[in-house]
Amino acid sequence: MRALVKTKAGQGLEMVEKPIPTPGVGEVLIQVRYASICGTDLHIYKWDNWAQGRIKPPLTIGHELSGQVAGLGEGVRNVQEGDWVSAEGHIWCGQCYQCHTGQKHICRQAQIIGVDRDGCFADYVVLPEQNIWKLHPEMDPCLGSVFDPFGNAVHASMSWNLGGRSVLVAGCGPIGVMCVMLAKWFGSYPIIAVETNEYRRGLAKKAGATHVFNPQDVDVAKKALEATAGQGVDIFLEMSGSESAIRSGISAVRPGGGISLLGIPGKEVSLDLAEVIFKQLTVLGINGRRVFDNWYMMEKLVLSGFDLQSLVTHRLPFSEWERGMQLMAEGTCGKVTLEIS
Amino acid sequence: MRALVKTKAGQGLEMVEKPIPTPGVGEVLIQVRYASICGTDLHIYKWDNWAQGRIKPPLTIGHELSGQVAGLGEGVRNVQEGDWVSAEGHIWCGQCYQCHTGQKHICRQAQIIGVDRDGCFADYVVLPEQNIWKLHPEMDPCLGSVFDPFGNAVHASMSWNLGGRSVLVAGCGPIGVMCVMLAKWFGSYPIIAVETNEYRRGLAKKAGATHVFNPQDVDVAKKALEATAGQGVDIFLEMSGSESAIRSGISAVRPGGGISLLGIPGKEVSLDLAEVIFKQLTVLGINGRRVFDNWYMMEKLVLSGFDLQSLVTHRLPFSEWERGMQLMAEGTCGKVTLEIS
Amino acid sequence: MRALVKTKAGQGLEMVEKPIPTPGVGEVLIQVRYASICGTDLHIYKWDNWAQGRIKPPLTIGHELSGQVAGLGEGVRNVQEGDWVSAEGHIWCGQCYQCHTGQKHICRQAQIIGVDRDGCFADYVVLPEQNIWKLHPEMDPCLGSVFDPFGNAVHASMSWNLGGRSVLVAGCGPIGVMCVMLAKWFGSYPIIAVETNEYRRGLAKKAGATHVFNPQDVDVAKKALEATAGQGVDIFLEMSGSESAIRSGISAVRPGGGISLLGIPGKEVSLDLAEVIFKQLTVLGINGRRVFDNWYMMEKLVLSGFDLQSLVTHRLPFSEWERGMQLMAEGTCGKVTLEIS
Amino acid sequence: MRALVKTKAGQGLEMVEKPIPTPGVGEVLIQVRYASICGTDLHIYKWDNWAQGRIKPPLTIGHELSGQVAGLGEGVRNVQEGDWVSAEGHIWCGQCYQCHTGQKHICRQAQIIGVDRDGCFADYVVLPEQNIWKLHPEMDPCLGSVFDPFGNAVHASMSWNLGGRSVLVAGCGPIGVMCVMLAKWFGSYPIIAVETNEYRRGLAKKAGATHVFNPQDVDVAKKALEATAGQGVDIFLEMSGSESAIRSGISAVRPGGGISLLGIPGKEVSLDLAEVIFKQLTVLGINGRRVFDNWYMMEKLVLSGFDLQSLVTHRLPFSEWERGMQLMAEGTCGKVTLEIS
Repeated sequence: MRALVKTKAGQGLEMVEKPIPTPGVGEVLIQVRYASICGTDLHIYKWDNWAQGRIKPPLTIGHELSGQVAGLGEGVRNVQEGDWVSAEGHIWCGQCYQCHTGQKHICRQAQIIGVDRDGCFADYVVLPEQNIWKLHPEMDPCLGSVFDPFGNAVHASMSWNLGGRSVLVAGCGPIGVMCVMLAKWFGSYPIIAVETNEYRRGLAKKAGATHVFNPQDVDVAKKALEATAGQGVDIFLEMSGSESAIRSGISAVRPGGGISLLGIPGKEVSLDLAEVIFKQLTVLGINGRRVFDNWYMMEKLVLSGFDLQSLVTHRLPFSEWERGMQLMAEGTCGKVTLEIS
Repeated sequence: MRALVKTKAGQGLEMVEKPIPTPGVGEVLIQVRYASICGTDLHIYKWDNWAQGRIKPPLTIGHELSGQVAGLGEGVRNVQEGDWVSAEGHIWCGQCYQCHTGQKHICRQAQIIGVDRDGCFADYVVLPEQNIWKLHPEMDPCLGSVFDPFGNAVHASMSWNLGGRSVLVAGCGPIGVMCVMLAKWFGSYPIIAVETNEYRRGLAKKAGATHVFNPQDVDVAKKALEATAGQGVDIFLEMSGSESAIRSGISAVRPGGGISLLGIPGKEVSLDLAEVIFKQLTVLGINGRRVFDNWYMMEKLVLSGFDLQSLVTHRLPFSEWERGMQLMAEGTCGKVTLEIS
Repeated sequence: MRALVKTKAGQGLEMVEKPIPTPGVGEVLIQVRYASICGTDLHIYKWDNWAQGRIKPPLTIGHELSGQVAGLGEGVRNVQEGDWVSAEGHIWCGQCYQCHTGQKHICRQAQIIGVDRDGCFADYVVLPEQNIWKLHPEMDPCLGSVFDPFGNAVHASMSWNLGGRSVLVAGCGPIGVMCVMLAKWFGSYPIIAVETNEYRRGLAKKAGATHVFNPQDVDVAKKALEATAGQGVDIFLEMSGSESAIRSGISAVRPGGGISLLGIPGKEVSLDLAEVIFKQLTVLGINGRRVFDNWYMMEKLVLSGFDLQSLVTHRLPFSEWERGMQLMAEGTCGKVTLEIS
Repeated sequence: MRALVKTKAGQGLEMVEKPIPTPGVGEVLIQVRYASICGTDLHIYKWDNWAQGRIKPPLTIGHELSGQVAGLGEGVRNVQEGDWVSAEGHIWCGQCYQCHTGQKHICRQAQIIGVDRDGCFADYVVLPEQNIWKLHPEMDPCLGSVFDPFGNAVHASMSWNLGGRSVLVAGCGPIGVMCVMLAKWFGSYPIIAVETNEYRRGLAKKAGATHVFNPQDVDVAKKALEATAGQGVDIFLEMSGSESAIRSGISAVRPGGGISLLGIPGKEVSLDLAEVIFKQLTVLGINGRRVFDNWYMMEKLVLSGFDLQSLVTHRLPFSEWERGMQLMAEGTCGKVTLEIS
C-alpha cells in the first residue's frame, strides 16, 4: 500500500510502498478513503523544534480520517467490514486515573496516531476498536475526516453556552473558523474574529463573524470593548497560541467572563494574572475531544444542518499531498482533504 | 387613560377610563406602546380557579409590554423620558435570601404586575426603576412586548446546552414554540414537538421541529425512542403542565438526561420516581427569567438574527382586545400583540 | 466453597456447598473476606414483589465485599494474587451511549452482582477486572465491604457542595446516616434528620444531626422551616423512598434549593409539581456510584479521617448470616458485616 | 472620635481625632467594636508601589470590622440601633452588567472601604445599608471582623468541592491557613501546604496540613507528586502571588485538575500555558466574596463548629495598632484583631 512517511530526520515526507498492516487483538483495519491535513502534519513535514523532540522516524503521519472497515482483529465485536468510520486519534490506556473517571481525552499514557504510531496518510491504517466512531448513514462520509478538528472546536466553544453571548475568537485557522461558525450557529453577538492572514479573515467573515480584525493593524482589546458597548466580551476562544493574542484577549473579556485556551504557545507567555484575578475570569485549557461526548454532539450538529462541508475548501487526490502542505503553509485554505482511495 | 380592568369577580374584563398614575420614589411612568397577551391573562379573563384564588379586583391586567418612558419619580437616575423600554414583570423585594444571593427571579415577596398590582393593558403603567429594561436601539421595539415569554423559553432551554443534543418539547403554545425555535437555532437534532392543537403543531413544524406528534394519536415515549435510535432524548422541555405529557416525557429521556419543567400542572401529578432515580435524571423547575442575565441573552439572540418576530402571528389595535382573547382561547395563534398607542 | 443461595422462589436463603468458580478471560477470582448486608439482600431474602420480578433462582446473593485476589483469568494485567480489593457491583457493558460518555454507573445493560449474577455471600466470587477497586494499604480492609453503600451516600450528598448549607436527610438507614455524617463532616448547619425507627434516630443523632424528628409525630416541613429561621433547607437528601417524606421534603426546601432522590418508592408518588416549578428546585435522581470518581473520593475521605468504621455496628461470622438479616429487618443496626473467611 | 489615618504620602499612619460621621440617605453609622488587620493595611502603612498608585490621603484605613449600629440615615429599613453587624467592604454600584447579573463582587465601579473611602480603623464608620451583614446571635461577634478574609478563603476553596480531593495550598498567611482549615474540615487528603515563613508553616501544620514544605528547600511539584502517588493534586489554591509558587503549582496539578488564583502577583508572571492546555486545567480568578452567598455559608460553617477563632492569634487594644502592623510585617501571627471600643 501507499503511505506518506517521515522516513528520516529533516524536512519533507516520502510516499513509499509498505505492506498492509494486520490488525491485532481488539484492533481494526481501516481502508482510508479521506484524510485531512492538520497543522500538526505541517509541523512534522517542516521538522520544526516540536517535531524533532517528539517524532521517531520512520513514521506514517496523519490522524484525521474517514474510511471503511477492511479487517477485524480477534475479539472485535462492534464493527463489521464495510462500515464507514472515523476514529478518535488519541489512543487511551484505560487504566489511569483519568481513564477511570471519564476523562479519557487527557489519559496520561495517550498515544496519538500519526505522531506516536503509524497514522492515516496511507491506504490502510490499524486502530484499536475502542477508538472507532461509526459514521451516521445520513451523513456525507467525507466529513468524517474533519471530525477530529471539528471536535476541538466543539470542545472549546461548547464548554460554554454561547447562545446570547458575545464572543472573541483569536486565530482563524480551520479550528478558529469552526469556532466562529459555531458561535454564529448558537446565536452569539457580536462575534469578533482576529487573524493576521487575509485569506483566513475572509473565511471568518463568511463564517459569520460580525467584526474581523487584523491584530497587526488595531488594538484588539480596544476594538472588542467598542464592539460590546464597553462591556468586554463574555467568552474568548484562543485558537492562535500567540502571546499577544492571549494578552489582548484577557484584556478584552468582561469581569466574570470565560476563556478557552486551545492554541499551543511555542514558548512561555508573560501574563498579568492580576487582571485574571480582579476580573474573576475562568480559564479552561482545552485538549482534544471529550470521548465520545463531543463525537455524539458533532453528529447531531451535522444532522441538524450545520454546514461543516463549507469549510473544506480543497479536495485533492492523495498524490497531490505536497500541494496540500503548500496550501496549509500559506494559509490560503480552510480544511484540505486528501482523497486517498 | 384607557385600562383593561377586571372590575369584579366573574368572567370578562372591561375597558375603563382611569387617571394616569403618578410615579413614586424610584418609580417610572411608562407610556405603553405594545402589550402582548399571555395565557395568564386568559386565565384572569375566564376567572378560573387559579384566578379566583389569586386576583383581587379591581385590577388592570397585562404584564408583557414595550413602551416609552413618560415620567420619572424621585431618585430615578438611569432612564430618561422617551427611552424605549420593556420591563421584568416580577417585582422583587431586594431583602430576602433569594434577592441577596443573585436569585431575584424567585424572590419570596415577588409581586407580579397585572396579577398582584396594576398591569400594562393600559395607556400608562408605573413600575419600579429596578425592573426597567432598556431596549437596544437596533431592535424593533415591538419585540420588547414578547421578551417576558421569550425569557421563559430562554430560561428553560438555555439551562442546558442544547447544541448537538436531542430534544423533546411538550406543549407548543408560544413559549413551547419558542423552545423549538431555540433548539433549532442551537443545532439540536432531532427536535420532537408534541401538541394536541393542530394550528400549534403547524407552528412547531415551521419553527424547525423534525418530528411533530399529536399525543392523542401516538405513544410519545415510543416515538421519541424511535426518533433517537432507541437512545431516548437528551433533554425534555415540559411546557404543557399536562400529567400525561410529563409522564411520557420522563419515559422518553435517556439515562443521564435532563428535564426543564415550566408548564404548571393544574393539580397533583402521579409519577414513577423510580424511573427518575434509576435513569439518574436531572429535573429543573423553571420560574420566570433570571434577572437580568436572561434579558442580556435575549437581546444578543435577537441582534444575532434570531427571528422572534415570526412568532407574533397577530397584531391588533387595543380596542380589539377581546378578539385577542378569543384567538388565545382557540389556540389559533402564536403571540398576539396589542398596539396600545 | 460455602455460598448463601436463593435456591428457589419463596422466602429464605440456604447456605450450600458449591465448587469454587473459575475466572474467565478478563476476570478475577476473589476470596471474600468481608461482605456487608444491604437492604436489597433483605428484599431477596423476604422474596418481596421486587425480588419476585427480578431474581432468577438459583442465585448466590450479596454485592458489598472486601477480599483478596485468589486467581487471574486470561488477559488480566492490573491486579495480582493477594491484593486486597473491593469492587463496583454494577458490571457495565462498555458499549452503550452511557458507557461511551463517562456515565458507566447508568449503563443500559448493567448487571448487578448478587442480583443478576452470582454475588459475594460466598467464600469466592468471580468479577471482571474492570470492576475491581484496589484498597489503599493504609486503610482497614474491612471497610472495603461498605464502600458500595458509602459510595451511594457520597454520590447523593456530594452532588452538592454541602459545606455551609442547611440539609434535611429523610430516612436514616445506613446510607441516610452516612449522609448525616458527611453533612456534619462538611460543615452543614443545621442538619435535620427524619426517621421513624427509634434506633436509627439514635444513630443519626450520634452522627451529628442537629435536629432529629420522627415524622409520625411532627410536621417535618414546619419543623425544617423553624430550624432554618423560616428560610427552608438548602438541600434535601431523600433516602427513604416514602411518599410522605418526599412530599414534606419538597415543602421544606427553600426556593432555589436542591434535592437528591435515592430511596426508591415502591409505587407511584403523587406530587405538587407546581411547588417544584415556582420554587425553581433542582431534583437529581441518584443511582449507584460514579465509576470510579466516587471511589477515589471515598478513599481520600477515609484517609482524611472520616470515621466510616463507626457505622459498622455489627460484625458477625458468616454462619450467623440469619441473625444479620434479622437485625436488618428490625432496623436495630447500622451496617452489618459478615466475616466470611 | 479616634481614627487611624494615612494623613499624607509616605510610610506610616497617624491616630487622629475626627468628628463622628453622619449617615446619609440609605447609610448606616456603625460603632466599630473589633477591626482586624489585612495585608492591604500593611501595604498602605508601608506606602508601597500599589499604595502610592491607589490611595489618596487623607484616608482612614481598615475594612475588616465588627460593630454595632449607632445611627440610621434616611430610608434605612432593615437594621436597628444596637444590632451587631459586619459588612461587605466592596461597595457595589447596583447598575452595571455585573451587578445586574448576580456578580456584585466584581462590580465595575466597586469602591473598597479603607482604600477608596474612609474605613473602619476608627470608633465609627458609615456604610451603605446594602453592605451590612447582621451577625447571628449565637456567634461570637468578634468573629465578624474576620469574615472578610474568611470569605476570601471560602470563595477560593468552595468554588470546588474539596471533600475527598487532594489539595495544595501555596502561601499560608491568614487566608491560606483558612484554606488549609477548610480543606481539613471538608475531608481533603492529602493537604499540602507551602510557605517560606516558619511561624506560618507551624500554623498550617496545626490547621491540619498533612505535608508542610518550605519552597526554598524542596521542589514543590516533585513533593506534591510524591504525596499523591504520582497523580498530582486535584486542586491548587494559590494564595501567595509568588511566580515560583504559581509555576510549581501548575506542575503539581493532575490532568483535569483545578486552580484558584487569589494571591495577586506584584508583576507579570511567565507561564508555560502549554501545560495548562495539555492537562486541561480549569483556572479560576478569585476576587472578594460572592455577595451574600459566601456570607451565608460562613455563618453556617461557624454555627456548625468550624473553629475560626483559632486563627485569631492576637487581640490588641486599638492603641497598640503599631504592634499589630509589626506582627503582620514579621508574619509571626495569624489574624490580628484590634479591640476598638
